[in-house]
Amino acid sequence: MAVFETKFFSESLLQDVTVSVILPLPTSSNMEFGDAIQYPGQKQKYQVIWLIPTGTADHSKNVRSSRIEEYAKIHQVAVITPNLHNSLGFNLPHGVEYFDFLTRELPTIMRSIYPISSRREDNFIGGASNGGFTGYMTALRNPHQYAAAFSIGSFLDIRKCRDNKHAKFWYEKVSASLFGENDQYYDPHVHDTKTLAEDLAASGKEQPKFYSVLGFEDPYYPEAVGPTKEISKILKDMTVIEEHGFHDWDFWDPQLRKVLEWLPLKRGFVE
Amino acid sequence: MAVFETKFFSESLLQDVTVSVILPLPTSSNMEFGDAIQYPGQKQKYQVIWLIPTGTADHSKNVRSSRIEEYAKIHQVAVITPNLHNSLGFNLPHGVEYFDFLTRELPTIMRSIYPISSRREDNFIGGASNGGFTGYMTALRNPHQYAAAFSIGSFLDIRKCRDNKHAKFWYEKVSASLFGENDQYYDPHVHDTKTLAEDLAASGKEQPKFYSVLGFEDPYYPEAVGPTKEISKILKDMTVIEEHGFHDWDFWDPQLRKVLEWLPLKRGFVE
Amino acid sequence: MAVFETKFFSESLLQDVTVSVILPLPTSSNMEFGDAIQYPGQKQKYQVIWLIPTGTADHSKNVRSSRIEEYAKIHQVAVITPNLHNSLGFNLPHGVEYFDFLTRELPTIMRSIYPISSRREDNFIGGASNGGFTGYMTALRNPHQYAAAFSIGSFLDIRKCRDNKHAKFWYEKVSASLFGENDQYYDPHVHDTKTLAEDLAASGKEQPKFYSVLGFEDPYYPEAVGPTKEISKILKDMTVIEEHGFHDWDFWDPQLRKVLEWLPLKRGFVE
Amino acid sequence: MAVFETKFFSESLLQDVTVSVILPLPTSSNMEFGDAIQYPGQKQKYQVIWLIPTGTADHSKNVRSSRIEEYAKIHQVAVITPNLHNSLGFNLPHGVEYFDFLTRELPTIMRSIYPISSRREDNFIGGASNGGFTGYMTALRNPHQYAAAFSIGSFLDIRKCRDNKHAKFWYEKVSASLFGENDQYYDPHVHDTKTLAEDLAASGKEQPKFYSVLGFEDPYYPEAVGPTKEISKILKDMTVIEEHGFHDWDFWDPQLRKVLEWLPLKRGFVE
Repeated sequence: MAVFETKFFSESLLQDVTVSVILPLPTSSNMEFGDAIQYPGQKQKYQVIWLIPTGTADHSKNVRSSRIEEYAKIHQVAVITPNLHNSLGFNLPHGVEYFDFLTRELPTIMRSIYPISSRREDNFIGGASNGGFTGYMTALRNPHQYAAAFSIGSFLDIRKCRDNKHAKFWYEKVSASLFGENDQYYDPHVHDTKTLAEDLAASGKEQPKFYSVLGFEDPYYPEAVGPTKEISKILKDMTVIEEHGFHDWDFWDPQLRKVLEWLPLKRGFVE
Repeated sequence: MAVFETKFFSESLLQDVTVSVILPLPTSSNMEFGDAIQYPGQKQKYQVIWLIPTGTADHSKNVRSSRIEEYAKIHQVAVITPNLHNSLGFNLPHGVEYFDFLTRELPTIMRSIYPISSRREDNFIGGASNGGFTGYMTALRNPHQYAAAFSIGSFLDIRKCRDNKHAKFWYEKVSASLFGENDQYYDPHVHDTKTLAEDLAASGKEQPKFYSVLGFEDPYYPEAVGPTKEISKILKDMTVIEEHGFHDWDFWDPQLRKVLEWLPLKRGFVE
Repeated sequence: MAVFETKFFSESLLQDVTVSVILPLPTSSNMEFGDAIQYPGQKQKYQVIWLIPTGTADHSKNVRSSRIEEYAKIHQVAVITPNLHNSLGFNLPHGVEYFDFLTRELPTIMRSIYPISSRREDNFIGGASNGGFTGYMTALRNPHQYAAAFSIGSFLDIRKCRDNKHAKFWYEKVSASLFGENDQYYDPHVHDTKTLAEDLAASGKEQPKFYSVLGFEDPYYPEAVGPTKEISKILKDMTVIEEHGFHDWDFWDPQLRKVLEWLPLKRGFVE
Repeated sequence: MAVFETKFFSESLLQDVTVSVILPLPTSSNMEFGDAIQYPGQKQKYQVIWLIPTGTADHSKNVRSSRIEEYAKIHQVAVITPNLHNSLGFNLPHGVEYFDFLTRELPTIMRSIYPISSRREDNFIGGASNGGFTGYMTALRNPHQYAAAFSIGSFLDIRKCRDNKHAKFWYEKVSASLFGENDQYYDPHVHDTKTLAEDLAASGKEQPKFYSVLGFEDPYYPEAVGPTKEISKILKDMTVIEEHGFHDWDFWDPQLRKVLEWLPLKRGFVE
């Protein structure tokens, strides 16, 4: 197993960025218990999960708050986490291009450096909390790029944050930078997952698989559950799971583990 | 919550070292859910756990493999993890002074920089696997310095590694650097926890509290369980728990959480 | 010497942030050549330079691109570098509060954790390129907080970027997020260093000392030199130096070294 | 430009290790000043310098103390720095295999992950202070692997440390772990560069190019200069330069820049 903290310049963001990269390399467990994990050979590549941070979290928080490194090793998959700040992965009307960064520049740079697959069937995106929203939004807009998307404890309709007393302060602080101060840049065909789902369904394009899990005790559950179920009716293949759980890593960590079991991971090199 | 990767020069080790420091600082959860975590004021200090890495692991592995950062936040305790390489925390006969580093230089440096308590009652040491051995060995030799020590899935008698097919290769590789090629530097009053426990009992000094947990399915269980029980009979206050569990973080992570509940943590600043 | 990569949550920015902290701790040079650098004792604190990154650079770039760690050791001063992204250290009209972060939250947090002085006479701010603009802007607005500010190869009038073919693309990309799309949030009493200098002079408040250096071969020199000289006429104590040099660390690194010689550094602990 | 902090498990060292990797990726300078640096395409690889740390320094110190990242960008070369602790890159008689790590495991792992060339003509090794000794020792033993080696301010005869009052304390502390307590494991055909140079000359194998620079004011100069000149007479192509300079990065940083000009770097991708 290996964790790489990777710093480079992003042209889309006009900023030096730091990205966390997990590769399932051999560990002491190979020697200790006979595990058979190997280094990639020529032309061997990893499947890859683009694991989006939760709202307000940075590139390192997933590694610190979950046990993703271990799960990634079991499934032999690379996991890459960028820092999206408060952008949700959108191109900002008066700022920089986070969507371009996340869907174009970052994959291109990572593939030029690391042995990761560029094929749709080997790329997956999602996360916990707001990271799940970004996963859905991205996969719905770029269905040719990701074979699956997932959310854990997420508002899929981000504007529902306005209606929730815990999420409100965050939404009010960042929404003008996302959508303009009078929402004048808000475009449901870009920003709203339900509309994006309808657009995708109407387009006849191949759809990614989707997966969402919600916790009954999550303070965001009341506003999150409705849109999740609506979207599941629009998409061809979307799993919705409800369980007991709060809005924290006590719930998200084991759920993330289950996501990796759900994803079509090959437990080996591809290409 | 905060993680600090701290690089400085160690005179005991004649080396630049990197140490991982977790401080339970406020997070977004303060704003989101009304948590009341605060920054330390003048003279406020943290209790501190010296969390030793597992064998072969570095300073960052505990943070990555467990959810210690979250548990430390709940209990308002600082967690510091150095890198001990393959020294087990001993002064090496033909090398550098890891025991001096761990028990003297590191605490002195950390206390000169970070707001952590130097009082015995606020200092605890232990870890999973070999980290637990080092915790016991250190607290037994320096009982004035630590109020408690703990081990999770550990050989307390490190020489039992020789008898275990999974641990043997490691022991054979490193034992000469620890004890000399003919064990000529092996001193039970320094290296053997049972002897150290007897010495401590005989000395009449105040004893730390001790805690050990073992997993039935741990391939090291057969060699680990005997010495653990023997030592528990010598020490005044030692808890031994046996449960189902393997030699991995699936077992160690929830056990580490329980250790923090067992430790006399005040969930607040001290001094 | 020591470098700390410190990750914590910022309430002003609603984001996990990473900050680089340099402390002038003892190195092998103490043993090798008898240097007398010491760890801070009780109540001993460091003077501190808030070293702002160049435009587009992150918290780590100053350490990587200059030899600041060495210069800080010679002068026994702490150096702290946050990441300001493309904010220039302003509170953003539709975003988060970088000025509050830089001048209030960050110093408060850093002082609660590290042994650094909070006295005006021990705090200095500046940087190369855009970092110098932010240093001036901050010290002019908060003259009670910093004893000196410095700039190396900087536009002190940030709007002059519009007139320079190399800087234009950057300015056009970020200005709407700083000042509004029609500059409707532009306020010279907040954003313009010349106006801020006039305001400070008119206020009769104690002024920090200022220092600027410009390179003749810097492609930004033609637009940068005028405003620098104008501001120097307004402020009580401002040094302006012009030398041969380009817009890169070949020029900035030795200049940064000279800045540390110019700053009123005591080469020892304070308070 | 990019810096990668890479953590993985080393089987040779039985330890998690951290390695610093610099890749000359595009920076803001591409946009600002029209630089033409590019990401590697399919099958494009970097030449690589294995830059060994100075004695007592870790993997990060070269990046922090020199401006190597900038020089590597100019020359379009990857730079990789491992942490060798106090091993000098030898396999230790009672410890772990640093030579195997440095010359076999590390290159194999790095090449399986990063786009770096494995050809002899694209691989170079060296460093400042003890890093230069390790560079020579490695290239002399594995001349098929490196096209060039360099040293800056180095003892090429490491046992001369005994005769120098500044280096003595270090040598006495670590020599038993390197050579045994009575030097019983000392083998000139493994540990002594002069003997290794003679062995190489006698073998008729293709020789790497060598480069050494010494500073007159370096306290190690008196003991370092003799062996350097002797070795230069044995090897086919060795450059020795003497200049004014002390044993610090004020001298080493500009010398490192010159080394990159001396190395056969192609300023572009290879293979």
